[in-house]
Amino acid sequence: MTYKVGILGATGAVGQEIIRLLHERQFPFSELKLLASSRSAGKVQSYGDQSWTIEETKEDSFKELDICIFSAGGSQSEMYAPVAQKHGCIVIDNSSAFRMDPNVPLVIPEINPKAALGHKGIIANPNCSTAITLMGLYPLHKMFGLKTVIASTYQAVSGSGAEALQELKDQLNAWSNGQTIEKNVYPHQIAFNVIPHVDRFDSEGHTREELKLLNESRKILQLDDLAVACTCVRVPVFRAHSISVTASFENEIDMVSARKAIQDFPNVELVDDPDNLKYPMPINYSEVVPCAVGRMRKTNVIKNGLSLWITGDQLWKGAALNAIQIAELLHEEGAIR
Amino acid sequence: MTYKVGILGATGAVGQEIIRLLHERQFPFSELKLLASSRSAGKVQSYGDQSWTIEETKEDSFKELDICIFSAGGSQSEMYAPVAQKHGCIVIDNSSAFRMDPNVPLVIPEINPKAALGHKGIIANPNCSTAITLMGLYPLHKMFGLKTVIASTYQAVSGSGAEALQELKDQLNAWSNGQTIEKNVYPHQIAFNVIPHVDRFDSEGHTREELKLLNESRKILQLDDLAVACTCVRVPVFRAHSISVTASFENEIDMVSARKAIQDFPNVELVDDPDNLKYPMPINYSEVVPCAVGRMRKTNVIKNGLSLWITGDQLWKGAALNAIQIAELLHEEGAIR
Repeated sequence: MTYKVGILGATGAVGQEIIRLLHERQFPFSELKLLASSRSAGKVQSYGDQSWTIEETKEDSFKELDICIFSAGGSQSEMYAPVAQKHGCIVIDNSSAFRMDPNVPLVIPEINPKAALGHKGIIANPNCSTAITLMGLYPLHKMFGLKTVIASTYQAVSGSGAEALQELKDQLNAWSNGQTIEKNVYPHQIAFNVIPHVDRFDSEGHTREELKLLNESRKILQLDDLAVACTCVRVPVFRAHSISVTASFENEIDMVSARKAIQDFPNVELVDDPDNLKYPMPINYSEVVPCAVGRMRKTNVIKNGLSLWITGDQLWKGAALNAIQIAELLHEEGAIR
Repeated sequence: MTYKVGILGATGAVGQEIIRLLHERQFPFSELKLLASSRSAGKVQSYGDQSWTIEETKEDSFKELDICIFSAGGSQSEMYAPVAQKHGCIVIDNSSAFRMDPNVPLVIPEINPKAALGHKGIIANPNCSTAITLMGLYPLHKMFGLKTVIASTYQAVSGSGAEALQELKDQLNAWSNGQTIEKNVYPHQIAFNVIPHVDRFDSEGHTREELKLLNESRKILQLDDLAVACTCVRVPVFRAHSISVTASFENEIDMVSARKAIQDFPNVELVDDPDNLKYPMPINYSEVVPCAVGRMRKTNVIKNGLSLWITGDQLWKGAALNAIQIAELLHEEGAIR
């Protein structure tokens, strides 16, 4: 069985990784259609010795497709996901548009794969920080019962797209060459700085990114009472997010079991040997499949408390990889066509 | 009244700032003696149009001095502070050597100035992250009663000294010029990376830096039951530390009063206007006296909970400035000679 696969938003930072991972992971596609805005239509995108001409997204773009991964932002998803749905093309959506829709499953394949199979045409991919944080917390939740999450993020610039990655590079080169540092993507200089602001603010002073960790975690884990406090921070790192977490659990933590839970979970690595200077870091967890957990230690600041540090590639597990894992899951279950 | 002032460790990143701030803040000194190891002795240090020849630290270096600021690491402090004490030279010590000594006051002048006056020859300057965190938390503690602190830090490289600052610059220049990135000061590359490791690890997986926030906060605030969980992280920022804090208090938080408490406290600025993209950032709080507090919002993850973001110059409020403020306090109280 092979499929006709589409990518909406093929020119973006995530779109590029989707093309790469579809090939590297040998997803069984017979045809690949790259869709983007009229601005990008006609451009040629290549991978290895193959190339594709990007087509402008239109109502009938989805007619022939079996499955399409959307990564072009919320408004594009809102516009075209219902169209694809109508044509019987399964949508895996990277945007936040449908994540909290009760008719749309929000899926991390290692955590809630069954939810994907109940889809009605659209499956949502979680927020990048949420996916990476839950990859570290879910194995512990299964064992001890998660109650409270207090998180501070260290988010790489490529999470804001290719332009943001370029902006950091341009700022660093400008500094190195003694030139003026300019900014366009972020409201403040990101080189040599940290910015406690990711996505838009609400009236109570939370950012949408911070609320995603609350709302999406509750939905994925089916934990309506989960309490989450989060501060999201952009750091001058090219790639891979890190999250400093202090969590409380229903049951007392046994460190041996906690470590084993992390080690035994698929696509999560325990990197927790501080005496040998081993802990997860973005430079080691970029362009790799697993997320990593380290700095695990009990704390008495909250009941049955544990502090830990989680790192993962936000373009992969936080976006492209998770989306393709959802497609792989559907394929394995014979649920695409 | 003018004083004979010494600086032990005058060539370091903090030592340089002490020289600068003694001048900029017009501390009344009649003589300045710069002390360092034999390696640096004979070198000439200048500020403005003045210069000093660095002397090797010896037993009788402190004989003529009224006050000496130590910033040469714990072992130098342990060796020479008792000598200075014997000669009647007041020591203000930046190292961690005496901070937890019950005979040595640990002082942030805005918070516990009276403790300084009870000294027996040595006054300790707090850890950089602790000083900056408490500048943000103490005004809230006075109003609501601090109980629990959960903190994640974003620490600038100059906190590790001048060599670390140079290492980040060298790594960035190497990257910009397409050369290999080398490392000596940190165990891992710091450019484009974050390292969840500041100071040495203990057997339970905490770093000494993380435990300083617990132990020093308890001592400074005289809160033996204060609970602290902290993860300390080095980030590729030249200067100024930031701390993401979620704290719980005895009493319910009233946000209007909380903001006013921050605004009314000396040397702390409320920078909390997210709609206008205003929040504290290291690039805005380097080489300035005040620390800044922003991103203030209530949270229900812990009782009477509040999340906030604090930024301050770790070479100033976290080290040199706080030390000089202690000297100024002693001078104002006529307690130096």
